[in-house]
Amino acid sequence: VVASGASAAAIEKGTFQHFMQKEIFEQPTVVAQTLRSYLRPLERQVALPQMDFDISRIERVTIVACGTSYYAGMVAKYWFESFARVPVDIDFASEFRYRDPILPPGGLALFISQSGETADTLAALRHCKANGQTIAVVVNVPTSTMAREADLLLPTHAGPEIGVASTKAFTCQLAVLAALAAHFAVKKGRLSAEQEAEIVAHLLEAPACLNAALDHDAEIRAMAPLIAPARDVLYLGRGQDFPLALEGALKLKEISYIHAEGYASGEMKHGPIALIDEAVPVIVIAPSGPLFEKTVSNMQEVRARGGKIVLISDAEGLAEAGVGCLATIEMPKVHPLIAPLVYAVPVQLLAYHVACVKGTDVDQPRNLAKSVTVE
Amino acid sequence: VVASGASAAAIEKGTFQHFMQKEIFEQPTVVAQTLRSYLRPLERQVALPQMDFDISRIERVTIVACGTSYYAGMVAKYWFESFARVPVDIDFASEFRYRDPILPPGGLALFISQSGETADTLAALRHCKANGQTIAVVVNVPTSTMAREADLLLPTHAGPEIGVASTKAFTCQLAVLAALAAHFAVKKGRLSAEQEAEIVAHLLEAPACLNAALDHDAEIRAMAPLIAPARDVLYLGRGQDFPLALEGALKLKEISYIHAEGYASGEMKHGPIALIDEAVPVIVIAPSGPLFEKTVSNMQEVRARGGKIVLISDAEGLAEAGVGCLATIEMPKVHPLIAPLVYAVPVQLLAYHVACVKGTDVDQPRNLAKSVTVE
Repeated sequence: VVASGASAAAIEKGTFQHFMQKEIFEQPTVVAQTLRSYLRPLERQVALPQMDFDISRIERVTIVACGTSYYAGMVAKYWFESFARVPVDIDFASEFRYRDPILPPGGLALFISQSGETADTLAALRHCKANGQTIAVVVNVPTSTMAREADLLLPTHAGPEIGVASTKAFTCQLAVLAALAAHFAVKKGRLSAEQEAEIVAHLLEAPACLNAALDHDAEIRAMAPLIAPARDVLYLGRGQDFPLALEGALKLKEISYIHAEGYASGEMKHGPIALIDEAVPVIVIAPSGPLFEKTVSNMQEVRARGGKIVLISDAEGLAEAGVGCLATIEMPKVHPLIAPLVYAVPVQLLAYHVACVKGTDVDQPRNLAKSVTVE
Repeated sequence: VVASGASAAAIEKGTFQHFMQKEIFEQPTVVAQTLRSYLRPLERQVALPQMDFDISRIERVTIVACGTSYYAGMVAKYWFESFARVPVDIDFASEFRYRDPILPPGGLALFISQSGETADTLAALRHCKANGQTIAVVVNVPTSTMAREADLLLPTHAGPEIGVASTKAFTCQLAVLAALAAHFAVKKGRLSAEQEAEIVAHLLEAPACLNAALDHDAEIRAMAPLIAPARDVLYLGRGQDFPLALEGALKLKEISYIHAEGYASGEMKHGPIALIDEAVPVIVIAPSGPLFEKTVSNMQEVRARGGKIVLISDAEGLAEAGVGCLATIEMPKVHPLIAPLVYAVPVQLLAYHVACVKGTDVDQPRNLAKSVTVE
């Protein structure tokens, strides 16, 4: 257990019913707070902490994490590969440790953990350090063991997270990782100053877009009773929305005790589609954009088998494919870069309100510990 | 639809109740048949088809597949990385296509598909070909489109697979991939002649070990009624048993309509453990060996939450951790290299017998097509 150093005020629930709810609603503030350390708004530049290594020489990145932090890493893989064109390996910490991983000479190994104490992730960090990797960590506790052992400490400024199911730490991790990916791309000569300015502008829009997402809280609460009776749920997404589908499923598992499973939309027809009937709602994360049509055809496959769909999309997506859904959740139209941050909100709120309908112990779900310091 | 050229005899069920059952029991024969093309038993050498490229110069492998073939690819990633020390990227075909993947210059891209016609996989193949990758395919239909478009055709000799849920194609894929990994390692100078001979010897043991696994059919049939009432199942494995857990879960989904989810054992405590109660059996794949103790501690976590465990292990593993399980399935003690082939059998038989108890249409499960030739 690590002393958080938080003041009493920061760990009170205020007008909220649960810490998790409070932490979901804090996201615009804490993401803005986190971004302030990583962006220079006037210069429209990213600004990472001083590094004693030359990031432009990194040819390969290894990301290791567990649970929700792993899903943040999956999103980061898309960003690192698409902005910096540097290939990324990603693995669960518990798997990575035991598979004698091939580490690229002079590679960067990046570890993500809210607490900075997750046992498997810490062991993986030490393995990489012993094997000559440069160590970067994204942690929410700057005094943690991982923070102390890192070459590059990238703190999130989410404040203490009390709810066992991670919410604000996740979106703050994404904010840091987006800034890191942009910085990396600039140093690699892959982004012009103009492109960098554009990325910074979009990241600066994130807090307002998170607020706009939170404005849909009441409609998500109103539809939660439709999902609460389900024992099983499929959560689908493509591309960078695939990790969001995994995260949405994890949240439902953690606090609602619903067996939700995240799947890449295009993989559904290779098996899980056999599960689909009226009792298994399918939640689809699909902002409008180039992949939307593909997802609509997956939705038609679900519907043809009597499946009920909840579509989370923007107005344009809902106008095109919202008719006939069990429910829809509207998100603001946002730039793809910040979509993973914004779409985190409805998946968190949905799990939260479903848990409230079911009357589970939201902040202390059964069987779970906040920080997993055993292997 | 591709004409299979199969004789009528090969597609009759004989004394079996279902094609799937027949295909499960054919595995010792068809794996032996497949291995005959890839091994020289007397010389104790692997023998791959002639290649017009120098495999020793490949620095990176990209594996792309869907469904069960993807899980074969996950196992192959372990083998390629541990034998040849060549890093492997793996992705679902439906994801790979749309993420603008970074392809290493002169890289090898490997596609796995029973039919050789899977639409997403074929599109990924063409993308890689257009981007200068050398194309290898592991397919069961040597006249298929993928076979025709490959630089290196590695056929499986499983014979026609009629059951929609893939079984014998999977173990034959693994046999080919093991031989390819060994060949690759030899050409990379990573395996001595002695080590190669040892690998060949273990692969040659696979058919007999598959037979020994099939000898446990009656006990698996006898325990199937314990799993049949479950709506939800967790399937756990570590290392190369993790893809087997995913495959076991997929089989249960496909033909038993049970919502089974595969998880890396060490990730369970980061969320899914919240689902565990008496109604959610946890099936654990854990041959005895260096990772066994870690898995035993995961089993204790399950048990402490009232969860019921089915342990699939060898006599040594069952002696150590079998007491107190809902059921156990004994496998022969085998070398780790062939464990994925051998442990495929109980996960297939379990899904099969559970489906029979439930009375589902085993060979034509609802909602599924044998060969997915749409995106």
